[in-house]
Amino acid sequence: MELNSNILQRGVDALSALPGVGKRSALRYALHLVKMSDAEAMDFVDAVRRLKTDIKYCRRCHCISDEELCPICSSPKRQQNLICVVENIQDVMAIENTQQYRGLYHVLGGVISPIDGIGIRDLNIESLLQRVAHPESEKVEEVILALPTTMEGDTTNFYLNKQLKPLGVKVSAIARGIAIGDNLEYADEVTLGRSILHRIPFEQ
Amino acid sequence: MELNSNILQRGVDALSALPGVGKRSALRYALHLVKMSDAEAMDFVDAVRRLKTDIKYCRRCHCISDEELCPICSSPKRQQNLICVVENIQDVMAIENTQQYRGLYHVLGGVISPIDGIGIRDLNIESLLQRVAHPESEKVEEVILALPTTMEGDTTNFYLNKQLKPLGVKVSAIARGIAIGDNLEYADEVTLGRSILHRIPFEQ
Repeated sequence: MELNSNILQRGVDALSALPGVGKRSALRYALHLVKMSDAEAMDFVDAVRRLKTDIKYCRRCHCISDEELCPICSSPKRQQNLICVVENIQDVMAIENTQQYRGLYHVLGGVISPIDGIGIRDLNIESLLQRVAHPESEKVEEVILALPTTMEGDTTNFYLNKQLKPLGVKVSAIARGIAIGDNLEYADEVTLGRSILHRIPFEQ
Repeated sequence: MELNSNILQRGVDALSALPGVGKRSALRYALHLVKMSDAEAMDFVDAVRRLKTDIKYCRRCHCISDEELCPICSSPKRQQNLICVVENIQDVMAIENTQQYRGLYHVLGGVISPIDGIGIRDLNIESLLQRVAHPESEKVEEVILALPTTMEGDTTNFYLNKQLKPLGVKVSAIARGIAIGDNLEYADEVTLGRSILHRIPFEQ
């Protein structure tokens, strides 16, 4: 796609760096921005700029938060002795949307992936171990690992379990199995196999 | 979707104002921006800001252009006596991509649409009539109307034809018919009907 303007070209290039945005969508976004009123456009630019300059993280769980402690960490209604370890902030939101979990979180900021150059020091692992070893309030009873089922996720699960066990905390991982509403015949073999291996007693 | 941060919320709201972007995509974009390096993020913000502050339009055809005259208007290789009238800049790009047209363009900036409050004065119609009545270089032989096949597009076609004809210029509209590769049985009746009505002599 040949654009007549370097300014437009640069805008399109910048917008197409967003995840999942191709050149054609980026052009649509760029032309939308061109047509915005001055006030709208400046508001847009300011809102986007602040994402980089003003965003802060909860000092305990590393969620994005405007306060030093995020609303979840500082809520008296949440179980302080339960920590769910997730890869990123989207996962916190996904679990919060289920309304099934009332404990705290810990955002790792990724999973161990030597191929991408992500090692143990690049992740929020040390602060997790500190939270368990030296709890700010209540003693931590259980750490739930809710990491992706990839080789990297499994590696991270394995490493965390090895580090957490000596601290005398229960470590568990979220259940893997056939999704609600899914048909057995279309499930992949690994998932189906695991769902039989980790079958659960029938509730009477 | 409940976000823990007003800054993140504002960023997501701004990004979801882009055309076709929902809250979920906007959140992905926002978190991508949060994770960018400072230099990348500032470059992004600057590129987007300039879309509003620095963009200019060709004084003749109203295309986006960094120069006073866009590369198409100033090219000696283009036919100066042929003007194709389009709704917006994307349409110029679409026609350029066909490599079938070697004339000039005129971007109206919309079509007549009383329901959206877009009247004749809101569009670049006066400058089109000026281009035909008082050509800068060669006399304009033909104006091709390439507007959308909507009621608004048809209204605009009708109005432009009425204004252009007295200036002694040939006015034509792009052909409507069955798209190349399309099956007759799936074509809508109006398109199929028009394609028969406006049939073209078979080339020997």
